[in-house]
Amino acid sequence: MRIEVICTGDEVLTGKIVNTNFSYITQKLEDVGLSVQWETTVGDDRENLLLAFKLAGQRADAVIVNGGLGPTIDDLSQEIAAQAAGVELALNEEWLTRMEEFFRRRSRVMAPNNKKQAMLPTTAEVIDNPIGTACGFALDIGRARFFFTPGVPRELHRMIEEQIIPRLLAKSGMQTAIYLKRFHSYGLGESHVDSLLTGVDELVTDGSVKLGFRAHYPQLETKLTVRGTDMGDIRAKLVPVEREVRKRLGNFILAEDDQTLEGVILAELTNRQGSLAIVETFTGGQIAARLVPLPGAEQVFRRGIGSRDLAEIFAGVGLEGTPPPGELTRETAEAVARAARRHTGASHALAVLIDLDDGPDRIDFGGTICLAVATAEGADSRRSRILGGREWVRLGACEMGLDCLRRHLQGLPVYERIDFEKP
Amino acid sequence: MRIEVICTGDEVLTGKIVNTNFSYITQKLEDVGLSVQWETTVGDDRENLLLAFKLAGQRADAVIVNGGLGPTIDDLSQEIAAQAAGVELALNEEWLTRMEEFFRRRSRVMAPNNKKQAMLPTTAEVIDNPIGTACGFALDIGRARFFFTPGVPRELHRMIEEQIIPRLLAKSGMQTAIYLKRFHSYGLGESHVDSLLTGVDELVTDGSVKLGFRAHYPQLETKLTVRGTDMGDIRAKLVPVEREVRKRLGNFILAEDDQTLEGVILAELTNRQGSLAIVETFTGGQIAARLVPLPGAEQVFRRGIGSRDLAEIFAGVGLEGTPPPGELTRETAEAVARAARRHTGASHALAVLIDLDDGPDRIDFGGTICLAVATAEGADSRRSRILGGREWVRLGACEMGLDCLRRHLQGLPVYERIDFEKP
Repeated sequence: MRIEVICTGDEVLTGKIVNTNFSYITQKLEDVGLSVQWETTVGDDRENLLLAFKLAGQRADAVIVNGGLGPTIDDLSQEIAAQAAGVELALNEEWLTRMEEFFRRRSRVMAPNNKKQAMLPTTAEVIDNPIGTACGFALDIGRARFFFTPGVPRELHRMIEEQIIPRLLAKSGMQTAIYLKRFHSYGLGESHVDSLLTGVDELVTDGSVKLGFRAHYPQLETKLTVRGTDMGDIRAKLVPVEREVRKRLGNFILAEDDQTLEGVILAELTNRQGSLAIVETFTGGQIAARLVPLPGAEQVFRRGIGSRDLAEIFAGVGLEGTPPPGELTRETAEAVARAARRHTGASHALAVLIDLDDGPDRIDFGGTICLAVATAEGADSRRSRILGGREWVRLGACEMGLDCLRRHLQGLPVYERIDFEKP
Repeated sequence: MRIEVICTGDEVLTGKIVNTNFSYITQKLEDVGLSVQWETTVGDDRENLLLAFKLAGQRADAVIVNGGLGPTIDDLSQEIAAQAAGVELALNEEWLTRMEEFFRRRSRVMAPNNKKQAMLPTTAEVIDNPIGTACGFALDIGRARFFFTPGVPRELHRMIEEQIIPRLLAKSGMQTAIYLKRFHSYGLGESHVDSLLTGVDELVTDGSVKLGFRAHYPQLETKLTVRGTDMGDIRAKLVPVEREVRKRLGNFILAEDDQTLEGVILAELTNRQGSLAIVETFTGGQIAARLVPLPGAEQVFRRGIGSRDLAEIFAGVGLEGTPPPGELTRETAEAVARAARRHTGASHALAVLIDLDDGPDRIDFGGTICLAVATAEGADSRRSRILGGREWVRLGACEMGLDCLRRHLQGLPVYERIDFEKP
């Protein structure tokens, strides 16, 4: 089945906004085993829209159109859809009523130009948008089924997941039960994980499990797409594969599915009624900033202290004396973490200290990271060197600090060799 | 002149990466007064590539193709370009020599498959890539001039700015001297700034100054694109318009051109040999993290202290007693900023305290911000309420805190009513 996507709107075409709606649509389709073959972006322009619809209608079986369903005069999707399909526009009374209710519930008056959003091609099948006034719809243009979706991301997301994907799967004749299992890891590169997981998808011999990756440095997402007759079938297929992925990636798996590294840490600390202090240097508050704004962090996060100057760090955590001269050491990181714990009364303290290279930023610019986690029982620490420029070092140090804390909280070794550090 | 862009590659088509190369290209073209009418994304697939090249060659005057110039077998741009133009591929000895030098200078051996990157259509004009091995080139397909560019962003950026834009401007017959002046502001919405600046572009009567905006909450970028016969002509046109923009936007302009808010603050503090302490709550270290990693911040940034708990903040800055019960006040923020200054010995202290609404995140979830800037001379403060959800409040508070510090350092009033706060 050939699928195309058409994105509309001057804001996308001129680059005022980056087209994340398209990457969202195509990712979601990939996740259920459907592939987009072609994408077209055009502006709010009658001639180009009509041509784009006609060309896609000649080539594709299904076309998803995004944007142009709003109330303003530059929103042209319904009008051009009707023209391309050779039908008229007519007021959809049902949708008009829905819109009037939408505004009434919010104690707002519907502007007259909103009525335009209920004008649909006469042959259109309405596709529900339960959270907005833009009416989704489907109709045939040429040989393709066209699906029209709103530009507002949260409305688009819900419509794609709940309405469009089931219709596409039905059209493609594929089994409709599908499930995406995700593992998040830090420390192993994509090709390394790929080789570690060789053959896991073949534990289910009928080809219904597909392995894939999405890298967003410093984390890597490992995806298992599973197809089956129903969720029971999918569960049965997934169990042995999941078990094998967990075994092979082991301690490197930091979270699964919608979990995040910072969320896992927060949950671990909340469960044991713990509290946390964080001390950081070059990362400048970024490590703390991953945790602090989360709901529930107000119960757990005790204090964050940051400075580029180690003497200031010592003063900030109430450590007597001055930092030892020479290279940064794990012992210094441990002393700082212990002192931060004592000073703030937190049950846990994380210290991430960094010695940056001298000179201007460059591709082999690096930093030496000494980090420690302290609790009532003592301190764990590691030393590591990361290259790749200032920003790379900063991002890597944030992730490494949080991941070592996660490992400590889960009773795992704080130190395991990772792909991103230099020996 | 009709311009189209074709983006190639499975990573973009499947959404593994978001297509920021396209938004970069189209923004850069807009900045010099050229407009893209149509964008197509196809994967690493011979049939779709050929069709995309042929269709664009029928419609457009100029086409920019991005990606597919690498050494691997899925990089198909040269091959399909030759096919679409009806010419052969031939080894470009000059580019091969350049590539061999490129590897030699880096003490690396060139892999045999890199030779593929020097295979060009016989009618191609070479477009230099001074920082990579992917050879840019131009040739005619149908009625359009095609420009082939590398997928690596920094190589693409340099080629677009130095090579492609001058060729497009020459082709379009437009004056080639062009200049983009940018102003960054915080606190006024796009439509507000648009109305404040009504008519500024008409101060130059020949239409050679164009006003535009790019919003990236919480900041707004105001752009003046100026055309002229040479840079002297441009300067002469720009002077009165720049002066008028500065006058009308006044204290809201926080930086110009490549300056950043955090960079301006760092420069102000460095110039007066000042130093800075930052105290924050819900923002969790994010305000400090904007400044601390900058080169030179190690001389200026004294200490950052963060906690969600006001009692912890008091302890962290050495304030006696407990926080006053009831609503957060400007007086409390001032007391915290003064104490942070005393406690750390910094010349300046910024305190950004936030009272969050209760309950789950929602569109009208808000926060009350009390912030203060303290120096040896005393303290300035403001109180503000921002709605729009947890993340919106967090982003807005970071920007407001830094902008008030900027205003204080520049001798401007810390308080001016902004569009994003509720009365």
